[in-house]
Amino acid sequence: MAETRAPDSTRRSERSRRAIYDAALALVGEVGYAKTTIEGIAARAGVGKQTIYRWWPSKAAVLLEAYVDLGAQANEAAGGDADSGIPDTGDLEADLKLVLRATVDEMNDPKYEAPTRALAAEGVVDPELGARFVEELLEPQLQLYVTRLTAAREAGQVRPEVDLRVALELFVGPLTHRWLLRTQPLTHAYADKLVEYALHGLAPR
Amino acid sequence: MAETRAPDSTRRSERSRRAIYDAALALVGEVGYAKTTIEGIAARAGVGKQTIYRWWPSKAAVLLEAYVDLGAQANEAAGGDADSGIPDTGDLEADLKLVLRATVDEMNDPKYEAPTRALAAEGVVDPELGARFVEELLEPQLQLYVTRLTAAREAGQVRPEVDLRVALELFVGPLTHRWLLRTQPLTHAYADKLVEYALHGLAPR
Repeated sequence: MAETRAPDSTRRSERSRRAIYDAALALVGEVGYAKTTIEGIAARAGVGKQTIYRWWPSKAAVLLEAYVDLGAQANEAAGGDADSGIPDTGDLEADLKLVLRATVDEMNDPKYEAPTRALAAEGVVDPELGARFVEELLEPQLQLYVTRLTAAREAGQVRPEVDLRVALELFVGPLTHRWLLRTQPLTHAYADKLVEYALHGLAPR
Repeated sequence: MAETRAPDSTRRSERSRRAIYDAALALVGEVGYAKTTIEGIAARAGVGKQTIYRWWPSKAAVLLEAYVDLGAQANEAAGGDADSGIPDTGDLEADLKLVLRATVDEMNDPKYEAPTRALAAEGVVDPELGARFVEELLEPQLQLYVTRLTAAREAGQVRPEVDLRVALELFVGPLTHRWLLRTQPLTHAYADKLVEYALHGLAPR
C-alpha cells in the first residue's frame, strides 16, 4: 500500500522497516531466538510496537523477512541482483565454485553468522519454525541450483539420470554441515574440492 | 575404580549410571539443553544429585557420555560392536550404503531424534559445547569413514589425490543437512543416491 502514500511517508516507512530488520537480526544474534521479543525489537529500532504489529503478525514473520532482505543485500554486495540466480557461463564447475565461494564468505561474515545460527538452531528443535525457514528462505535458494543444474544437464554436462534436487545437496549439504557444526575451517579451497569431487566422483574414472 | 568394589556395588553403580543416562537424554529431548539441570536429571533417575557430581563435573559431561553410550547401543542393535567401524567387504559402494542406511534409521528413531536435535541445536549457538560435541562424539565417527576410504584407496577404488577427510562429507554432510533442516524425507533411497553420486560423480564419465 506504500504507493498510495505521500513520498515522505513512504521514505519514513522504508527507514522504519530497515531499522526493524536491523534490530531484529542484531537482537536474535545476541540473545537467541527464544528471548527475542517484538517489544525488544521495537525498542531497539526506536519504533512503537504497534508499528511492528501493523506490518507483521509475529516475531517469526519479522525475522523471516529480515533474513530474506539480508540475503538480497548479500547478493547485491556480491555484484548480482536478487533474481539472477547462479551464473551460467557454460562452465558448470567454474560457476559452482564462484557461488560456493561466495556462500563461504557469507557464512564467515559476522553480520550474517550470529543471527543465522540463532534461526537455524531454533529450526532444529522447532519443527513449525523450521518448516517456514525451509519453505520461505532455504528452498527458493536451493531451486537456483536446480535451475543451473538443469541447464547443465541440457548441455550434456550432467548425467541424464541424476536427480537434480538430490545432486545439489552434495554441494550445499557439506558446506552447511561444516558451518553449523564447525568441524573444520570453511575456506574457498574446501568449496573448490566439494565441487570437483561432486562433479567427477571419488572413484577412478 | 569399579574393579575394587564388591560385585553388588558394581551392579548398583551400573544401574544408576544407566538410569542417569536415560534420564538425561529424555529430559534434554523434552525441555531442551538450556533447561536441563543436574537436579532434574537426578530427580528423574531416582538418585541423589551428589551421585551425579561424584561421577561427572558438569551437565555437558553427563550428556556427552550419555550420547556416546546411545551411539554404542545403536551400533550393537545394528549387529556391530562398538569398535568395528564401517564393514569392509571389498565393495565400497555396498558398504557405504549399508552404513548410511543404518544412519538414516538411527536419525529417524524417536529415541535418538529429540535428544540429538537438542544437543546439536545448542552446539550451533554455543561454540564451546559445539567443539566438545565435535571432538568427543562426531569426529571419532567421521574417522571411521576415513579408515574405510583409506582401505578403498589402497584397493584402487578411490582416486589417489582425493582428500579423504573432505570426501566423507559428501555422504555425511547431505544426510545431516536433510535431517537437521528437515528439507525432504530421509530415506534409504536417498542414502543410496548420495553414495552413487559421490562415488561416480554427476558429470558424464
